[in-house]
Amino acid sequence: MDLPKTQEGRLLLIPTPLVEVAQTPLTAVLPQTTINAASALHHWIVENAKTARAFLGAVHAISPLSVPLQHHVMTVLPKHSQLDPASALALLKTALNAQDVGLLSEAGAPCIADPGAAIVAAAHELGVTVVPLVGPSSILLGLMASGLEGQRFAFQGYLPVQAEARDATIRALEGESAQRHQTQLCIETPYRNAALLLAMTRVLQRTTRLTVACGLTGPQSFVRTRTVEQWRREGIAMPDKIPALFGFLAG
Amino acid sequence: MDLPKTQEGRLLLIPTPLVEVAQTPLTAVLPQTTINAASALHHWIVENAKTARAFLGAVHAISPLSVPLQHHVMTVLPKHSQLDPASALALLKTALNAQDVGLLSEAGAPCIADPGAAIVAAAHELGVTVVPLVGPSSILLGLMASGLEGQRFAFQGYLPVQAEARDATIRALEGESAQRHQTQLCIETPYRNAALLLAMTRVLQRTTRLTVACGLTGPQSFVRTRTVEQWRREGIAMPDKIPALFGFLAG
Repeated sequence: MDLPKTQEGRLLLIPTPLVEVAQTPLTAVLPQTTINAASALHHWIVENAKTARAFLGAVHAISPLSVPLQHHVMTVLPKHSQLDPASALALLKTALNAQDVGLLSEAGAPCIADPGAAIVAAAHELGVTVVPLVGPSSILLGLMASGLEGQRFAFQGYLPVQAEARDATIRALEGESAQRHQTQLCIETPYRNAALLLAMTRVLQRTTRLTVACGLTGPQSFVRTRTVEQWRREGIAMPDKIPALFGFLAG
Repeated sequence: MDLPKTQEGRLLLIPTPLVEVAQTPLTAVLPQTTINAASALHHWIVENAKTARAFLGAVHAISPLSVPLQHHVMTVLPKHSQLDPASALALLKTALNAQDVGLLSEAGAPCIADPGAAIVAAAHELGVTVVPLVGPSSILLGLMASGLEGQRFAFQGYLPVQAEARDATIRALEGESAQRHQTQLCIETPYRNAALLLAMTRVLQRTTRLTVACGLTGPQSFVRTRTVEQWRREGIAMPDKIPALFGFLAG
């Protein structure tokens, strides 16, 4: 099925793969409608132009692009800074001009643990229709596969880097988890994965269940939930270049 | 791509459509790999046998079932109660017996705002590999399309039904949202959608941004984010039979 066409431009939110297409093909993680929607667009707002072009190359191999890639218009989101509402509005207005615009993050679902929310907020302000398309999210896949509480959960983003502040945050989140029966989720820069796991197994109570979901949708993916007591006994060698989601639920 | 085969039974988490297949075909919301994985299974743990069979009928139309539907073995999860760990373990052990088992919720991603987490927890306890597959989740799609904060968010499930307790909860969640810059998400039984929206527009601060995401992936879907002040002025007729996700972020 293709999305119905409209007179006015819309903002389409297109998820992208979590791992390289060479490792996991697009058809493993994107519905045909998402692939077709991407192949029909030629105006983009993207987190990273290089990965966006690689993604569109993979889309083209399945569903030929309606306009050759060299004629696509791409605006790159500013790095390491939130777009202020006025700039987001200006950026979206230019891109739209009565045509559909696609929003792409570097990997996974746009706006979830990723930039882009300011663009979507601008779309609502302009009364532009926002269409979210289905695709992979490591947060959602990791939570599904954790066996932890999925009826009440919070995504905390990154924890503090500094050890003392990080440990205090882990303790506070565990207290909240116990009080609310709420799963706590967070991510970390891959090279710090092993340090975060070690900190969690040290700081959390031994009956708390702790999940590591690593490299989801990729060939080396695994999801492992154990009590902290079991983690202390068994441990695990964390890969330092593969993204991971961490989750825990006080026992 | 098909999932690689294994010697030991795995637990496959298969998302299902959010709306009827007559309204939105499977290929709009499920990657080919998810559809193929479903068509290869014949042992299931499901939330609802009727919707599971309808889903498998739709799967068969795209990717023929490896075993005729009448020979599939389905165990239905207990209604309105959490499965205790021992029962979940017994149930999963019987289902597995060295073959892959699929877990299906009634709509959307298994274990997210849905039962099934006890089965996944049992799988981790048995050392069974858990494989989450990609598909639609109204929480994820609604958050993506909200333009609210996606780097920090919490899903609160259902709010209290009783008006005074509900309003107090809305106020408390708004305070937390302001303090943490965290998006608050919740759902409601469809016939109470209008009442919840009214309560939120009444109780929340006028600068708080409030999102309603309704009937996602379906033909009547819409996502609308406005400040509470705008909601008060403009209002909206909420459909009373279509599921909605509500979200807000203190301004």
